[in-house]
Amino acid sequence: MMPAFTDRLADAVRSKQSSLVVGLDPVLERMPTQILDAARARHDDPREQAAAAIVEFHSAVIEEVADTACAVKPQIAFFEQWGPPGLEAFEQTVSMARQAGLLVIADVKRGDIGSTAAAYVRAHLDPAKAEARADAVTVNPYLGSDSLAPYLDAVDNLGAGLFVLVRTSNPSASELQDLACGDADLHERVADLVSGWGADRVGACGYSSVGAVVGATAPAQLASLRQRMPSTWLLLPGVGAQGATAADVACAFDEQGLGAVVNSSRGILYAYGDPTSSNWKAAIGIAARTLRDELRDAAVGASAG
Amino acid sequence: MMPAFTDRLADAVRSKQSSLVVGLDPVLERMPTQILDAARARHDDPREQAAAAIVEFHSAVIEEVADTACAVKPQIAFFEQWGPPGLEAFEQTVSMARQAGLLVIADVKRGDIGSTAAAYVRAHLDPAKAEARADAVTVNPYLGSDSLAPYLDAVDNLGAGLFVLVRTSNPSASELQDLACGDADLHERVADLVSGWGADRVGACGYSSVGAVVGATAPAQLASLRQRMPSTWLLLPGVGAQGATAADVACAFDEQGLGAVVNSSRGILYAYGDPTSSNWKAAIGIAARTLRDELRDAAVGASAG
Repeated sequence: MMPAFTDRLADAVRSKQSSLVVGLDPVLERMPTQILDAARARHDDPREQAAAAIVEFHSAVIEEVADTACAVKPQIAFFEQWGPPGLEAFEQTVSMARQAGLLVIADVKRGDIGSTAAAYVRAHLDPAKAEARADAVTVNPYLGSDSLAPYLDAVDNLGAGLFVLVRTSNPSASELQDLACGDADLHERVADLVSGWGADRVGACGYSSVGAVVGATAPAQLASLRQRMPSTWLLLPGVGAQGATAADVACAFDEQGLGAVVNSSRGILYAYGDPTSSNWKAAIGIAARTLRDELRDAAVGASAG
Repeated sequence: MMPAFTDRLADAVRSKQSSLVVGLDPVLERMPTQILDAARARHDDPREQAAAAIVEFHSAVIEEVADTACAVKPQIAFFEQWGPPGLEAFEQTVSMARQAGLLVIADVKRGDIGSTAAAYVRAHLDPAKAEARADAVTVNPYLGSDSLAPYLDAVDNLGAGLFVLVRTSNPSASELQDLACGDADLHERVADLVSGWGADRVGACGYSSVGAVVGATAPAQLASLRQRMPSTWLLLPGVGAQGATAADVACAFDEQGLGAVVNSSRGILYAYGDPTSSNWKAAIGIAARTLRDELRDAAVGASAG
C-alpha cells in the first residue's frame, strides 16, 4: 500500500523546500493566445478546443513548476464547464502532474450522503483510475460525519488525503461559518470534528491525513485555528489574487516549516498578464519561485521570532 | 426568455397532478441484467460500458415515468464515477428527460467561491448547452451569499431554479445543521437566508425560484421549516429507501398541493428487485404511480384535516 498521504506531503515539502501549491484554474480568456490559436486550428468543437488548450497550457505549467511546488490543486469547476472533454482534460492534468512528481489535490468540494459520497470517492480517489486519480480531495462538511465516512475509508485503505472546508477565503465566509454556536463559532466546531477525524490518522511527520481548508484572508481566525488543530495540515487559499500575503500565513507553519501548504492560482498561472506575451512560461516559473521563497522566509521568520 | 423556474414547476405539478420527483442514481449492480449484457456486448472499455447501460436504462425509466413525475433528479456522482463517458451519459440523461417533458433538477450540491461558482453555472445551467442543461441545481450554503450569487444571476437571467441544502436527510445531518446558533439552529439560519434570496424571486404561483432541500426523515424539522419558509419550494428527499413515507411529508403541501416536491430514487428505479426480472420496466412504472398517488392523497388529507 501507498504511504499515508500526510507523510507523502511532508516528504514533498521537505525535499522541495516548498510549501507552495499551484492552483490550476484554467480560464481561456487569460491563457496565452499562442496556445488558444493552436487548439482552434486542431479542433472544431468549442469544448474540444477548450480541453486541448487546457491540456497544452497545463503541460507547460507543470513542467515549469514541477521542482518549485509540492502539489498542484486543479479546480474541477473550470474543467466541468467544458463537459466530457473538460473532464478528460482534468484527468490528463492529474496524470501529467503525478508523472512530474507533484502531489495532486483535486479541488472538488463535494459533500453528499454516504452512498453518494462513495461514488465521489470512486470518481476521484479510486486506484483503478491509475495515474488519473488524485492524491487528496477537498470536501464540504455541512452534511456531517456519515457524509465523510467513505473519504475516511479512502484515507485508511488507499493512502488518500482529505482537506475539509473549515473557514473559507471568500468575503461571505463569515455569514454562516462565524456564527456563534454556544461557546464556539461554527468553523471552530467544524475544526473540532476535523481534529477528531484525524486523531487516529496521524503519520510519522506528526500531522494527520485529514487536513483543513482555512482561508489566508482571515489572519485572526487562521492563528486561532492553528492552535485549535495542532496536528492538522492546513491548506491555505487566498494568497495572491484574493489579497493575502506570505506574511499573513507565517503563523501556520511549525519550526520545521511543516503543517501548512499555501495555494496560489491566478497569481502564478497568469503572472505574464498579457496573453500575447511571448515569455509567459518563464513568467509563471518566476512567480512560482518568488512565492515559494517568500513562504520559506515567512516560515523561518515566524519560528525564529 | 424562459418563464421563471418556480412557475414551470407549478405548471408541471398541476398538469400532471404529481409532486413526484424520480431520482436517477444509476447503480450498475442493481440494473437489469439484460441492459448490462447489451452494453458489454457493444463496448470493451468498462467506463463506456457503464455509460451505455446508464443511457439505455434511463431511456426506459424516463419513458415509463414521463407522465407520472413532474421532474427527475439525476445525481451526478453516480455519473462522475465513470469519468468523461459518465458525464456524457449525464448530459444525455438530462437531454432525454427534457425532451420527454420532464423538468430536470441536477443534484450536484456544488458550493464554492464566486468565480468558481460561475464556472459551475456554465457547467450545468448555461443555455449554450441547449437541451443538455438542467432546469435547476442543488447547492451547498456553507460558503455564504457570495458563493450563491452566480446561481441567483442564473435564476434572474436564465429562468433557472435553485435548491439550497437546508436540513438534509442523512443520519449525521444533525451534527452541524442542528447546532444552536443563538436563538435559532444553524439550519434555521440557512432557511432565513434562503427566504431572503427568494424574496424578490417569487413567481405567479406564490413560491420563489430559490427552493430548499429538507429531508423527509426529520418530520418535526420539516413542519417547522415549512412555517419558516412559507414561499419556498421544498425538495424532500428521504422517502422510500431512506425510511420516510408519504404521510411524513403531508405537512409540506399547501391546499392546492403546491409548495413541495418529493424525491424517491432507489425505491422507484430498482422497484423490480431482481435484476434478472423480465418485467422490470412495468415495476418501475407501478412504483412511480403508487408513490404519486400516495403523495396526492397525503396532500389532500393534510389540507382537508
